[in-house]
Amino acid sequence: MDFLSDFLTLFLDKLQSPTLGFLIGGMVVAAVNSRLQIPDAIYKFIVFMLLIKVGLSGGIAIRNANLAQMLLPAVFAMTVGILIVFIGRYTLAKLPKVKTVDAIATAGLFGAVSGSTLAAALTILETEGIEYEAWAAALYPFMDIPALVTAIVLASIYISKQRDTADEYLSKQKSLSKQRVTAGGYPSEEPGTAGEFGEQGIIARGYPKRDTADKRVKIWPIIKESLQGSALSALLLGLALGVLTQPESVYESFFNPLFRGLLSILMLVMGMEATARLGELRKVGQWYALYAFVAPLLHGFIAFGFGMIAHFTTGFSLGGVVILAVIAASSSDISGPPTLRAGIPSANPSAYIGSSTAVGTPVALALGIPLFIGLAQALMGN
Amino acid sequence: MDFLSDFLTLFLDKLQSPTLGFLIGGMVVAAVNSRLQIPDAIYKFIVFMLLIKVGLSGGIAIRNANLAQMLLPAVFAMTVGILIVFIGRYTLAKLPKVKTVDAIATAGLFGAVSGSTLAAALTILETEGIEYEAWAAALYPFMDIPALVTAIVLASIYISKQRDTADEYLSKQKSLSKQRVTAGGYPSEEPGTAGEFGEQGIIARGYPKRDTADKRVKIWPIIKESLQGSALSALLLGLALGVLTQPESVYESFFNPLFRGLLSILMLVMGMEATARLGELRKVGQWYALYAFVAPLLHGFIAFGFGMIAHFTTGFSLGGVVILAVIAASSSDISGPPTLRAGIPSANPSAYIGSSTAVGTPVALALGIPLFIGLAQALMGN
Amino acid sequence: MDFLSDFLTLFLDKLQSPTLGFLIGGMVVAAVNSRLQIPDAIYKFIVFMLLIKVGLSGGIAIRNANLAQMLLPAVFAMTVGILIVFIGRYTLAKLPKVKTVDAIATAGLFGAVSGSTLAAALTILETEGIEYEAWAAALYPFMDIPALVTAIVLASIYISKQRDTADEYLSKQKSLSKQRVTAGGYPSEEPGTAGEFGEQGIIARGYPKRDTADKRVKIWPIIKESLQGSALSALLLGLALGVLTQPESVYESFFNPLFRGLLSILMLVMGMEATARLGELRKVGQWYALYAFVAPLLHGFIAFGFGMIAHFTTGFSLGGVVILAVIAASSSDISGPPTLRAGIPSANPSAYIGSSTAVGTPVALALGIPLFIGLAQALMGN
Repeated sequence: MDFLSDFLTLFLDKLQSPTLGFLIGGMVVAAVNSRLQIPDAIYKFIVFMLLIKVGLSGGIAIRNANLAQMLLPAVFAMTVGILIVFIGRYTLAKLPKVKTVDAIATAGLFGAVSGSTLAAALTILETEGIEYEAWAAALYPFMDIPALVTAIVLASIYISKQRDTADEYLSKQKSLSKQRVTAGGYPSEEPGTAGEFGEQGIIARGYPKRDTADKRVKIWPIIKESLQGSALSALLLGLALGVLTQPESVYESFFNPLFRGLLSILMLVMGMEATARLGELRKVGQWYALYAFVAPLLHGFIAFGFGMIAHFTTGFSLGGVVILAVIAASSSDISGPPTLRAGIPSANPSAYIGSSTAVGTPVALALGIPLFIGLAQALMGN
Repeated sequence: MDFLSDFLTLFLDKLQSPTLGFLIGGMVVAAVNSRLQIPDAIYKFIVFMLLIKVGLSGGIAIRNANLAQMLLPAVFAMTVGILIVFIGRYTLAKLPKVKTVDAIATAGLFGAVSGSTLAAALTILETEGIEYEAWAAALYPFMDIPALVTAIVLASIYISKQRDTADEYLSKQKSLSKQRVTAGGYPSEEPGTAGEFGEQGIIARGYPKRDTADKRVKIWPIIKESLQGSALSALLLGLALGVLTQPESVYESFFNPLFRGLLSILMLVMGMEATARLGELRKVGQWYALYAFVAPLLHGFIAFGFGMIAHFTTGFSLGGVVILAVIAASSSDISGPPTLRAGIPSANPSAYIGSSTAVGTPVALALGIPLFIGLAQALMGN
Repeated sequence: MDFLSDFLTLFLDKLQSPTLGFLIGGMVVAAVNSRLQIPDAIYKFIVFMLLIKVGLSGGIAIRNANLAQMLLPAVFAMTVGILIVFIGRYTLAKLPKVKTVDAIATAGLFGAVSGSTLAAALTILETEGIEYEAWAAALYPFMDIPALVTAIVLASIYISKQRDTADEYLSKQKSLSKQRVTAGGYPSEEPGTAGEFGEQGIIARGYPKRDTADKRVKIWPIIKESLQGSALSALLLGLALGVLTQPESVYESFFNPLFRGLLSILMLVMGMEATARLGELRKVGQWYALYAFVAPLLHGFIAFGFGMIAHFTTGFSLGGVVILAVIAASSSDISGPPTLRAGIPSANPSAYIGSSTAVGTPVALALGIPLFIGLAQALMGN
């Protein structure tokens, strides 16, 4: 009962959060046929600002962490992050009528990490007097960024395969170069760039000698293309600058303070686009709700298991194991959406943001955190 | 004498304010043929940011107010806000050679509220020990937003009538769609949108069956179009988000701190455009000066009268009556200009900003506030 | 030895500064063929924001200064600022294979002033107990802005001469209007504007009556054109607003806090462009290193000499003389690059930023400041 009332309180609270408020505001604005628009140049710049901030904060956390000591937990965090996306790819995406790119994006968001869920867990750990390594919170970028990169690459591979299958029937050059930009870059790349990219892609994959024996999609060129896309470039640039330089001053005075505001405007834009695509979700909404309810707990248990391996082999604290589990259970309301919006533009934002914000995060907070802390306390013999 | 020196001090102070400084700076930049420009995408985004901030702050004020208790004063505030615009429409706009849209925009600005004038009045009320309801300051959005909306709608109706009259002589399709966007949206809407809008407008107003009997302009479609325009959409979106969600964190960290700076850039742009149109004002400047001197006192007395009705019927405090009068006497230097710029792009900013900043605000501060406070004290029997 | 280790520490520190980090980041992004881009409208606005901030801070410093007392030192600061650019024009620019516009831009940057070098000198002066006039630090805009303006004008004159020489052989109209925009405005002016500008330029210089006797370039029209360019317009607009109005509130709340962040994004763009032009520097890198090592000390000694004249004639303090020398020795890492980028777009940013950040600034800090303070102490008879 307590859980249910906690859950409902959190759910209603989330609906009043400015993030979701702007999303719904954008949907209403579009629904009433307003002529309100955010110029494209502004939109692209906002996405850039958000992604470089996400990268910078991850990079700064990694630079300040004790890398030698945290090696095994970090490898496990990375493994879990990638695993979560593959789980979503082979469960949610296989459900009837669920669109594959929407499912991959949703899994990416559930692999990514929510800073506020993590902060809640740290607070409770301290209240309960459970010890953990000071660097344990710095595990989050090791799960967050690999999960988002994996999602974008899996989506690119999927779209590429779809296209190649279609090619056999159609063999139409024109539509091809257009489809090619539906993953890996901002939604409206310069036409010139898009064209070049399409050509390069064709050459890289050895188009002329295509025959029935060569039907497998070549994966490395797609990964390279994904990484060269504006979304992952900005993310990785921020990560590299965070690790290699000392951007704290400019991060604290510029990128971090502007983050929430720019995010709210991005949400508005995403809401405006979501209106037209809300119908797509009507037939499959229950699958997203089911996934969003089960996934946080399942991911948390997987990470808890990996954490216990580190506990027994390298003495990773039980508090650290809880943190790893909470990181896995959380889904990103903040850093994930702009990355996925830019990296998998063809995915429906209503699907992944709705699943994460309305169901996934409340489940992780109200059910996941007490569960994993209780489990750790039981193992400690309290 | 005291009043005159107070007035002159305030007047000179206002001329040094950054808001007016950037406006004059923009005029000089344009006058010396500089190639300095603010890109259009930036300009549109700045307008959006300013309008959503104005809406948010109004919405937050309303959400935190005691709506039941303030019902009657709020209705009166709204009434006065709308009334002020109609007064300007049928006095200032009827003076010789005064352009109607300029007069409507000026009246809209005098109906809108200046936060700094209001703050000055609150300070003096406290110094004088005059009591007022804690929610009385929250009356301002009830006057501010209706006045701006009324001005934009009246301007749209006027432009629409003008066009229809012109149609009878010209019946030219081409010029029509161009004129149609001179009210209700950003000055340079996407050509596609502008076109569509023009077409829709024609259909909505039943173009084919136009005959001499059908000369009346249909008002509801115009109001609907005004509300769908980017200016009022952003304003009302902010208002709705302020009332329905809890945007305080993003408001305090993003929209509010950026407001004054973005406003200064908007002023620069408006100054650049004003240079070319300064000549228009030379013949009618004295009418604007007269209006700007008389209007604050007239509007204040009207609101004082309405306030006294609330005083005798529901016990609204005399301090509250003063606040209502000051809100009506003040004219918006800050929130109004971006709204009118976007909502009535064909109006000359030099007319309304000049009237408000150079004359209206000093009059309200140096003459209006002491007058209404003195009146209240006389009624209290001090 | 001490100096060498100080120098190397500073050098390594500089390489980790976010400013240089973003520059190198941009170079890497371009080198790996990423599709990351900053929209042009954003880029132009960032340049505008940076330039108006530089102007405003200079203007505010001048307004708050004691102009009568500082007249002679201010005139000397201005003289040294202009002189530095001419020295670079007739030394660095004459070295084999060094491109003239690159050399002029580099000299402009060494004439401009680094706020952080100045702050370091003020701290050391106070530690050493050497007295100086409170307004001495306000001398910096008198050197900074004239140096940048001189560099932009000299570059415009050079480019104009080049073009006229070329005309005699080619007399081709088409390529001409294209070359004409390589100095004085943002890199990508509106095509329309560029065209008009080209035409005007031709008419202003009396194109039809061109003959062998009229080969001298008319300088005043070029200066006028440079001042009307978007770069210098923004700079001078900020300066005027700083001197004539009271923009402190909007400066402190908006232009100043955003400065470092926007600068980092500009650096990213400049890095992206620098990659393609790095090869140009390979053959001449040693000349820039030599100039960047010698120039700070030479400029400092010249300013020290001028300062001593003021010391003996008007009693300018020896501490003030040191400040004047340090201002001359410093080169601008912060305010200069955006101005030169916009004012001399054809100059290679790798040349001037590399020279200043990697060599000039460490030399001024580690060698210049102790040298001039020691000199002043020797003259004081300590």
